Amino acid sequence: MAEGSDAIQTLIAQVARLPGLGPRSARRVVLALIRRRTGQMAQLAALMAEVAERSRECTRCGNVSESELCPICADPARANGELCVVEDVADLWALERGRAFRGRYHVLGGTLSALDEIGPDELGIPRLIARVGDEGIAEVILALNATVEGQTTAHYIAEALVSTPVAVTVLAQGVPIGGELDYLDDGTINAALRARRRL
Amino acid sequence: MAEGSDAIQTLIAQVARLPGLGPRSARRVVLALIRRRTGQMAQLAALMAEVAERSRECTRCGNVSESELCPICADPARANGELCVVEDVADLWALERGRAFRGRYHVLGGTLSALDEIGPDELGIPRLIARVGDEGIAEVILALNATVEGQTTAHYIAEALVSTPVAVTVLAQGVPIGGELDYLDDGTINAALRARRRL
Ligand SMILES: [Zn+2]
Ligand SMILES: [Zn+2]
Repeated sequence: MAEGSDAIQTLIAQVARLPGLGPRSARRVVLALIRRRTGQMAQLAALMAEVAERSRECTRCGNVSESELCPICADPARANGELCVVEDVADLWALERGRAFRGRYHVLGGTLSALDEIGPDELGIPRLIARVGDEGIAEVILALNATVEGQTTAHYIAEALVSTPVAVTVLAQGVPIGGELDYLDDGTINAALRARRRL
Repeated sequence: MAEGSDAIQTLIAQVARLPGLGPRSARRVVLALIRRRTGQMAQLAALMAEVAERSRECTRCGNVSESELCPICADPARANGELCVVEDVADLWALERGRAFRGRYHVLGGTLSALDEIGPDELGIPRLIARVGDEGIAEVILALNATVEGQTTAHYIAEALVSTPVAVTVLAQGVPIGGELDYLDDGTINAALRARRRL
């Protein structure tokens, strides 16, 4: 029982499984929370319980939401005919921080992967195709990561849309090779968005 | 509201303040917790609330504890006349993982710092001196980090004990210059403990 009580050990193990953390950082985090005499741990626990209770997936775009439709899907001003496809809600957040894109999103929740048995259905691609017709989309912007998986998925979606009149574009300059959107600064992401080209 | 609801933004801001995390890792962590459909966030929240409710400081040594005395202070077999002084509970955990030390601890909770107004009282050094007499301590092992602050604090404690018959030792070989205990593997920490020398 080197790391204190069973509850503390279980907590450390759970925190260590979070992205970007490991056993050592998990120990530091848990100790810091125990140490702060201000009730920081209890406060954080209450906040997490609240977020867990309230958070759901927007039924239309896959964004994190507190209601059936997320604020972006519920805002009629965002129905400008542009639909931006992202891998992940973190990428949607990165684009929203840039404040340059005023259309709507489609969150895939990952990339195509034969190994992990993630096919078009798992990524909601049929639903994406349906949205293009239903919502009068004129342009689909494929804002996927500049990784092999991201580009393979982008090409699959472009193929699936080839028989429709929609323009398919991709983010252009500014996204470094192998780079991930969520790492870019707002200026770079906006430049890439402005310079988008047809695929 | 780039990062979802107010509750999510507050949660991200709180997580970002934890040691080793920042805004970007906090967003990843919170999203991962929202995403896992298994109720991971609610589970973690419940566990944190439990740990917050139960955890206190051992009144004798400063270790994290569920009772007035921690399991080490409550175990008569650990009263072997050796008292190991550490900066932090994380260092105590690191030594316990090594399984070489069978005495008791004194957790300072930091190092002397004029800048941060942390003096001997804030670190419980008078209480440490009292323990040496009260508990029949024969050897005080100063297992502080090999940093300037750690070594300054070690020398202060050694000075304060100079008029007592207790042997004051420090961890020797194996602790790299500028290194922090909690980063060392168990073998290194045990070697340093075995080769400890008088200060
Ligand atoms: Zn939505
Ligand atoms: Zn104790």
